[in-house]
Formats: sequence, structure tokens, C-alpha cells
Amino acid sequence: MADNSVGTVETQHFTFAQPPNELRLELGDKLGPITLAYETYGQLNQDKTNAVLVLHALSGDAHAAGWHKNSKNPGWWDSLIGPGKGIDTNQYFVICSNVIGGCRGSTGPSSINPKTGKPYALDFPLITIADMVEAQRQLVDYLGIDKLLAVIGGSMGGMQVLQWMATYPEKICAAIPIATTLKHTPQQIAFNEVGRQAVMADPDWQNGNYYGKKVPAKGLAVARMIGHITYMSDTSMAEKFGRKTYPNKETAKFSPDFEVEDYLRHRGDNFVKRFDANSYLYLTKAIDYFNLLNGHNLNEVFKNLKAKVLVLAFKSDWLYPTYQSQEIVKACKLAGVNTSYCEINSTYGHDAFLLEIEQESKLIQHFLKTTAKENGKGDKNK
Amino acid sequence: MADNSVGTVETQHFTFAQPPNELRLELGDKLGPITLAYETYGQLNQDKTNAVLVLHALSGDAHAAGWHKNSKNPGWWDSLIGPGKGIDTNQYFVICSNVIGGCRGSTGPSSINPKTGKPYALDFPLITIADMVEAQRQLVDYLGIDKLLAVIGGSMGGMQVLQWMATYPEKICAAIPIATTLKHTPQQIAFNEVGRQAVMADPDWQNGNYYGKKVPAKGLAVARMIGHITYMSDTSMAEKFGRKTYPNKETAKFSPDFEVEDYLRHRGDNFVKRFDANSYLYLTKAIDYFNLLNGHNLNEVFKNLKAKVLVLAFKSDWLYPTYQSQEIVKACKLAGVNTSYCEINSTYGHDAFLLEIEQESKLIQHFLKTTAKENGKGDKNK
Repeated sequence: MADNSVGTVETQHFTFAQPPNELRLELGDKLGPITLAYETYGQLNQDKTNAVLVLHALSGDAHAAGWHKNSKNPGWWDSLIGPGKGIDTNQYFVICSNVIGGCRGSTGPSSINPKTGKPYALDFPLITIADMVEAQRQLVDYLGIDKLLAVIGGSMGGMQVLQWMATYPEKICAAIPIATTLKHTPQQIAFNEVGRQAVMADPDWQNGNYYGKKVPAKGLAVARMIGHITYMSDTSMAEKFGRKTYPNKETAKFSPDFEVEDYLRHRGDNFVKRFDANSYLYLTKAIDYFNLLNGHNLNEVFKNLKAKVLVLAFKSDWLYPTYQSQEIVKACKLAGVNTSYCEINSTYGHDAFLLEIEQESKLIQHFLKTTAKENGKGDKNK
Repeated sequence: MADNSVGTVETQHFTFAQPPNELRLELGDKLGPITLAYETYGQLNQDKTNAVLVLHALSGDAHAAGWHKNSKNPGWWDSLIGPGKGIDTNQYFVICSNVIGGCRGSTGPSSINPKTGKPYALDFPLITIADMVEAQRQLVDYLGIDKLLAVIGGSMGGMQVLQWMATYPEKICAAIPIATTLKHTPQQIAFNEVGRQAVMADPDWQNGNYYGKKVPAKGLAVARMIGHITYMSDTSMAEKFGRKTYPNKETAKFSPDFEVEDYLRHRGDNFVKRFDANSYLYLTKAIDYFNLLNGHNLNEVFKNLKAKVLVLAFKSDWLYPTYQSQEIVKACKLAGVNTSYCEINSTYGHDAFLLEIEQESKLIQHFLKTTAKENGKGDKNK
């Protein structure tokens, strides 16, 4: 393992909202008990002021850095999180929290409903980004942290960051929303909806009651393929694949001709192995519902925020175009928030937030350092 | 019916390549007999020099203008074709030819295979844009036309125009490729491939053998939904739908919340009623195979072309971005072809070629007029 790895890690679990103290969800339903999967890296300092909360995207999980025993791959943001890295675990106590509604250790539609002893399936209530953040807030409280040094995340993780900025402005010193938006647009909703339709069109979906039976693998694979197209750019696809043909062409009609076709099929099939189809429905719906501007003017959204903000966007990201990040900057500036904006010149499309690590590292490292200095914190040895 | 309508029209049929004189297809297979559905509007002049061939996009057909008896809607480009319109049927003899591989009256996978007496299904050979054009060339010959005044088409129709320019440069006086490309990129292939996967994931597809049984409706609807997202733009979706919620929200989870979701579901369901799923596979594959640069330098593609060319593109078209039309212009200019280029400032995305009729009409009308004048033709009364 490299010197700058956080090493072997384990996912932990925190359970709260035990009945009758169930969590009241944003849309009115109640849910409990709730388990959150999370991981931590680095040490919390004595005055508990060096905590950085990392929030993941649609298909992510709590395993952001380091290695699970016997696993072939490190965490999904391992290149950014570790000793001396962009989010320096020698300096900061990093928490990565999985979201509710997911299927990677936190309570979601595949969890057992205590009232029936069976998986919730579609009895699981509809959840929102605000509910995810409310659950994270409970985790942060449980860890004894009164105020986070920073919240950081891209895509759906960025929406959670924005929700933290709006709901708990007094609980964060800084925020870094990356490649995200204040509200989902009809085009973004449309891509998610087609993915959901693909899942629900699969007869194995069985109105969500497929647990213990055949999963809706084909539908979920198609949904994921659509996603992958939107995560890349025209340019990055041209550079990666061009019109290169698939070397092991089968004779069957409509088997893959081009490398890009084979790539998408593999990505779709791999996703099915690690993700629950119902979670895909719930999480994409939560994303589509996301609209911080609902009933608010742009200048009201962050009116109570004293934290400083770094907004990152990527020029070739057409799923979350840069104008949406510029709107976040505008909302912050209108609220008098200390805001920096950086548009990174990448060709990777939306995936850039997972790939443009060198530039992200420098920007985030510097931003966290100055935040820690301004708040007289951040060095656990002080 | 309005004064500027071509009035009531009927689709006609032309059959050729009767065995043993089957058509040798580009990929090596043979096909015959072949029927083409087509319509004509206006009168062919005495020296047969005023014919304009109109070519349709993926889901189009031979019915480009006028009204079928008892139909509620006119042809798909009726606003552009008619007396005094952009393609003026007082001046020109307009032919619109359906493509082979389709399902709107021409020979395709749903046609009866004379060798078995049953629908071809996947025994239908893979076809290409060049095969479509070869069939159209036979139709044009059959109509007694030695040289077309112009070939015009958008999207897949534009590819056929480009193929005419490359394969039969001596048979056209002018060409108008609209919102199209010299070759399909991996991103464009990817969108088509996901649509095909959606169709083939539907268990009702039955490896193509669904004729006379339940059609793969859900899969084809999902494929069409993906298409519709790519035909619109972020802006046009925002203007048309915003985040307006669907008024008749059902109580079931994951029923449409937003108008855009309802729109896509309707578009998907309507498509299933009029289009054959196997044709969708064959035509999208023909599009993906399209690559006029295969084995050619850009300056060789149109080296024998003497026709003049008008290339049209739309600023918000992200499915066939303007840089692809600019590449067509470059290929023409390198070959010394008289080429004009116009980038129309539309927010409609790829759909603009069917919607920006006012601007298209003026550009096309003027271009055809000067072409006819230069060739001493076009007025059937002369």
C-alpha cells in the first residue's frame, strides 16, 4: 500500500430514529430505525474542529478512501483523500456518509421493514436530499462534532452540500459543491426518468417485489448505460473510443460492433452486481425533486450562511453545465457569502469530478488550509 | 385545406430487384424484391429537370406533405413543401422516398420474406445508408429522371444527401444536408446502442420473432424516450416544461411527477403504435455504420462533385453539433465545391430542422431558385 494511503479501512454503522422516535421525512412520511453506513479517516482533534464531511454521488457509497480487506480497488475518491493528499488525513478527520435510500449499508428499499419482517420494496417512503442531510446531521451529532470544518461533494453529493449550506448554515465553516445544481432541470429529470422507465419496463422488476428472486438486471443495465453516456463528453468518448471496432465481434446481428458499445454493456452489467434497482428509483427521484429555489428567490437561499464557499465546475460537463454552478455562485454572492469559483478546463465531462484529481487537489487543499487557519483550527497537534 | 397545401395525396409503391436480379447490398448480402414507398408533389417538367428528392430522418416516411384521406395530420414537412412554400411545388416536382429497412411501406424486417412466406425478422440483411441511396437511385431512374435538381434532408436524411453527393455526384445539381454528419461519433453510436439495448432487453422482443404476437412495446418506448431527449435542447425543455408538475398525479410511486416525464411517456407510447421495433434496430445500425471518411481523406470525399451545396445547422443541436456541419463544409471546400453554410440561431436543438421552417424556407427557396436559374431549369412552364 502506498505511503499516502489511509490504509485498510472498515465501514461502520450508526443506527438512530428507533421507534417511536422515527424520523419525520420532508414529504411527511416517517422512517425508523435508520442505519447509516459511514467511514472515517484521520483523527478527530481534541476540540473536534477538524472534521470534513464527504458526500457521494448517485452510485457511490461510504467507502471513499483506503482499502477494504481483500478488495481489488480502493475507495471511490482515494486519489483525493489520504495523508498529504487534497483532503489531507494528517490534518483532517474525514467522514464519508452513505445516503439513506441507498443499498450500500444504509437503510433503503432493500432493507428489512421491521413492521413486516420483509424488505421494504416500494413500501419504503419517498426520500429527498434534505432527508439524506438530516440523517447525516444525526451522524455528525453522534460523533460529537458541533461544527464541520467543511462539507464536500460532487453531483448528488454536491446537492447534499448545498442542502447543508441552506439547512445547517451554522454547522459548517466551509462548503465545496462540485459539478452540481440548485435545482434539477427538465433535461436532467428526463434522463433520470428514462432510466427509471427502463427499470420498471423490466418484467423482473415485479413492481419492486423482486427480492429473493431474479433482479431486473436488463432494465437496470440500460438505465446505467444511459447514465454513463451523460457522464462522459462527446470529446472524451471520441478520444477513448473513436470508431474503433470491437475485436471479438460475434456473428449474431446487433452484437457489439464498436468499442463504445462493448464498454457501455460492461458498465451496465457491472452496475447490476453492486446496485439495487429500487434504490436507483428512489435516489434518482430524490435528485429530481431537488430544488433549493422552490419558493425562494435566489438571494434568499443562503441568507443565513456565514461559511466560505468554493464552487467547482468542469467546462465539458453537459449533464451539470457550468451555468448551473455559476448560478450557485450568484446565489452565494447575493447572500454576501465569501465565494470562489473555478471552472476546470477538462474534456472528461461530468466524470471530471472523479478524474481531474490533480487540479481539484490543489484547489481543495489550499481552500481547506485557509479555512482552518481562519478558524484557528485544523492542526490536530495544536 | 389551405391554398398552399399540396392537397390530398397517396403513397405510391415501386418494386424492383426481382429475383434473380436481387440488389447486392454494401455489406455483401443480397436483397430482393425491394419495394419503395414514395410520394410526389407538383409536376415533372417536360425535360425532367425540376425534380427535388426529399429524404427523411429515422422515424419519418414517404408522406412528407399534403394530407392522406381521413388523416388528422399532414405530412411531416408539410410546412416546407407546397405551392409557394420553401420547396415550391408550383416550380418543382418533389419526390419523397421512404428508406429500405423501414416499416412504412418499404421492404424491411417486417416484410414477408419470399423464401419463407413469413416476415424476415432478423433474417433481413443489415443495410447501410448507401443501400438506401442505391434504392432511391433506382426509383429516380424508374421515374425517368436523369439528374435531380436537388437532394434535401435532415439528420439521417442528411446522411443520405451526403451519400448521394459521394456516390452519384453526376446525378445532382445541388444538395442540402441539414443537421447531419459525415460519420457517426461514439457518443451518437452510444445513444443508439442504448436504445437498441432497451428494445432487446424486452422479453417480448423474442430475438426479433414477435410478429403476430405481443410487440416489445416497453423496450421500444424507452428507446424512443431516449431519442426525444436528444432531439430537444436543455433550453427548449426548460422553456416547454420547466419544473411544472403533472396535473393528474397518480398515487402510485414513480408515476409522473413532472410534465416532462408525462411528455416522454406519451411520445414513447405513440411511437410504438406506428413503428416496428426491428426496423428501429436496423435503421439505427445503418446510421451508426455511416462513415463517409472511412478510408478517405477529408479532401477526397467529394472530389467528383460539381453540384452546389447548402449546409444548414442549428446552434443548440447537441446531438449533431455544428462542428460536424462545419466539417461537411470543409470537405466540400477542399474539393472545390461551391458551398454555403448557415448556422441557424435556434433553441430547439436537433428538432429545429423540423421546426425552424421560416428561416429554412427562405434559405432553401433562394438556393433552389438560383440553382434552377444556373441550370436553366426549374420552371415547368418554360
